[in-house]
Amino acid sequence: MTAFDLVLFGGTGDLAMRKLLPALYQRHRDTADAAGWRIIAVGRHPITREQFLARAQESLRRFVAATDFHDDAFARFAQCLDYRALDASRAESFGDLAALFADAGERIRVFYLATAPDLFVSICESLAAAGLVTPQSRVVLEKPLGRDLASANRINEKVGAIFREDQIYRIDHYLGKEPVQNLVALRFGNALLEPLWSRAWVSNVQITIAETVGVEGRGEFYDRIGALRDMVQNHLLQLLCILAMEPPTSIDADAVRDEKLKVLRALKPLTREDITTSAVRGQYRAGAIDGEAVAGYLDEQGIPSTSSTETFVALKAELGNWRWAGVPFYLRTGKRMQERLAEIVVTFRDVPHPILPTASGAREGNKLVIQLQPEESLSLHMMAKVPGDEMRVRPVQLGLDFGDTVQTRSWDAYERLLMDVIRGRLTLFMRRDELDAAWRWVEPILEAWSRPGDRPKSYTAGSWGPAAASALIARDGFGWREE
Amino acid sequence: MTAFDLVLFGGTGDLAMRKLLPALYQRHRDTADAAGWRIIAVGRHPITREQFLARAQESLRRFVAATDFHDDAFARFAQCLDYRALDASRAESFGDLAALFADAGERIRVFYLATAPDLFVSICESLAAAGLVTPQSRVVLEKPLGRDLASANRINEKVGAIFREDQIYRIDHYLGKEPVQNLVALRFGNALLEPLWSRAWVSNVQITIAETVGVEGRGEFYDRIGALRDMVQNHLLQLLCILAMEPPTSIDADAVRDEKLKVLRALKPLTREDITTSAVRGQYRAGAIDGEAVAGYLDEQGIPSTSSTETFVALKAELGNWRWAGVPFYLRTGKRMQERLAEIVVTFRDVPHPILPTASGAREGNKLVIQLQPEESLSLHMMAKVPGDEMRVRPVQLGLDFGDTVQTRSWDAYERLLMDVIRGRLTLFMRRDELDAAWRWVEPILEAWSRPGDRPKSYTAGSWGPAAASALIARDGFGWREE
Repeated sequence: MTAFDLVLFGGTGDLAMRKLLPALYQRHRDTADAAGWRIIAVGRHPITREQFLARAQESLRRFVAATDFHDDAFARFAQCLDYRALDASRAESFGDLAALFADAGERIRVFYLATAPDLFVSICESLAAAGLVTPQSRVVLEKPLGRDLASANRINEKVGAIFREDQIYRIDHYLGKEPVQNLVALRFGNALLEPLWSRAWVSNVQITIAETVGVEGRGEFYDRIGALRDMVQNHLLQLLCILAMEPPTSIDADAVRDEKLKVLRALKPLTREDITTSAVRGQYRAGAIDGEAVAGYLDEQGIPSTSSTETFVALKAELGNWRWAGVPFYLRTGKRMQERLAEIVVTFRDVPHPILPTASGAREGNKLVIQLQPEESLSLHMMAKVPGDEMRVRPVQLGLDFGDTVQTRSWDAYERLLMDVIRGRLTLFMRRDELDAAWRWVEPILEAWSRPGDRPKSYTAGSWGPAAASALIARDGFGWREE
Repeated sequence: MTAFDLVLFGGTGDLAMRKLLPALYQRHRDTADAAGWRIIAVGRHPITREQFLARAQESLRRFVAATDFHDDAFARFAQCLDYRALDASRAESFGDLAALFADAGERIRVFYLATAPDLFVSICESLAAAGLVTPQSRVVLEKPLGRDLASANRINEKVGAIFREDQIYRIDHYLGKEPVQNLVALRFGNALLEPLWSRAWVSNVQITIAETVGVEGRGEFYDRIGALRDMVQNHLLQLLCILAMEPPTSIDADAVRDEKLKVLRALKPLTREDITTSAVRGQYRAGAIDGEAVAGYLDEQGIPSTSSTETFVALKAELGNWRWAGVPFYLRTGKRMQERLAEIVVTFRDVPHPILPTASGAREGNKLVIQLQPEESLSLHMMAKVPGDEMRVRPVQLGLDFGDTVQTRSWDAYERLLMDVIRGRLTLFMRRDELDAAWRWVEPILEAWSRPGDRPKSYTAGSWGPAAASALIARDGFGWREE
């Protein structure tokens, strides 16, 4: 494995501890020659390297699978870990960092910005000022990248003045998930799906990311963002792109991103009127999850009692192109939902003229279900004959279970994406124009919802969101797939 | 269950002992009210009812699954079994039979003719002469129904003078097999297959029925028939019909049979020249199966040393219709083959523009494999991502295992078909015009192969047939799917 230096801003934060350090640990453990790895966590806290290592070890023990965590493997990993306390908002504190790289030469250098987006520009400018940005440098920007089109543009503009576009890795970890990667493999590795993959045979598409957690102590941060910015603008739209894009000419970064961009630009803009009918926002009130009482959003710590921030969004999107015209794409995300569930459901039209009775009496279209959470799986829901005498059909699932099919441990999304950054593979990262197009589509909704007096609909914690979300889809004769 | 009388001609024969009595036993055992069942086996041998029951019990013990055979269940079954010795070629011996039905009234009456086809007409005429044919009677005709178009026509004509067409059940037990039924269910119970099911996406179709057995002591009988009449004209063409037919307007007998007929009539007639290139016949020579030496066909008992009867056939058929024009249907059957295997393989075209590398380096199209023997299964062969880092694809199978999906014991083909006869369901039986069309297509091949000096190609017992069968398919750039 290539040698590299990775500077992790937000190095003691939640994302670093839960996801990034575990991913780096796993890759380090499974890499034969990781001698040239150097990871420098950077944080505000004035702690020593030893204190940082102790924290890291504790997190790894918690967030790495028990079968994968070993003290000796950690000890080896720790050899390439370092920590620097640094005030990222002050350029003069970057001098220390520069000293570290005095003799790093032409090594690959990754700056991973796992911080709030309002620090992105100042960090990049300070890195540049300290002479740390080399041609071999890359910068990774975590979501949310801005809070609207204007702020995203500003960040992209300023970061783009320091890093070339091909040095900028705008990360969306949903794109690194194995089932999403497999959706790409299935779509473009098989002829089978292509003739089905259009308005002629697809009845509707649902993309759901439901969480059971609330704001988890990040209330103040979340209240400035809300579900539309936090989940829809990035994850849900990115999943929609993978699902709906035309076959690219190659798997190269720009070929893929050109096709994704076309999807984002094909999204029909929502008018004011559309927004009242095709967009629902919700905010959870007190309820219960798994039999345990939970507080309402307005009672969470750090949330103003008058907040109109949404914790739930349901949208109906449509694509203005030949392949998908008229096919509704229902997007839905929320906190404090009944179940933790992330899945894509492609429902096909029913047979045009049913001649076989169903065992249950009810009819349903074929479905392709790509589940990202809680399990990673992919299954084709079809009808097959009820065994025995009668010619009746019943639903069966033809499943592709990622765990089952091979012994290999499946990679976490961040493992794949971090390695892609180091190898310089941009395919799974968002290009500036994609981000721009996503914000453009979301902007009218943000505007409508920020009008004085506009308030989210209330929903009980532990439910599937406000009733209006069911009405949104029921009007078209469909229903959310709830299990 | 309706009361019925079933007269089984050939009642001590191979088919009765191996298949029909076991099927009747199973249905009897699983039927709550079988009080009205009466089964009269009829044979040439002057044995008593007790002797027949002893033989039947011995066969059932051998041919019914050990978990399903119980002496007490047999004892109950035996109560409805009777035996009559009778010379089926002599009308006067049918008097005895008539006595049995003196007070049978309007009961359903089934005459099952599990005899050589040259007895079909005389049996039916004798039944009629003895006054045994009632409006509630049905006759079941086993294969081979004739030995060419003319003899099949003669049988159909004469039997048709005694029984109405809707009283005639021309049986092809392949149509009763669970995976074949499931193919119907999958095709017409799902929208998914329809857009794939045509020349646009199907590259080629293979239908194989390979046996490891030789002529099994039936040499004299087999030598007059050969593989084309024994397997191709009926089983292989029937499977082709199920696979290729248009969706019928309903599952009713005539709606389905109309569509099957259209397929048979769409078969492109083979010219003399076609036959030299698109038809291969073979005859096995000595070889080994599973490591055991076996004799050549000409050394089998009852086979003339100059016989040119084929024990292997490979054909390339084409359908002259919009859906299938240009798609080759490769049919293949043989005795003394390497494996016992009956399967239908639909190979789809490869992706038009591959962008993902395969793990093996080789590319192959998606496949739907419907296996009838040795296991009953259905699987979709697709490409999915190799788990882990790289975006490479490898073959995976999405399987529908008939044993797994449900606890129910799956019905044998003869169980289903016998019950269909009793219930008067003709869907899975061949109509006269279907038989006629099948013979019409096969006739030029029969003629070409009966020319003096035309001899089958030799193949080693335990192989996959003569080399010419591989060349037949290789010329089109394909290969038989051998495992």
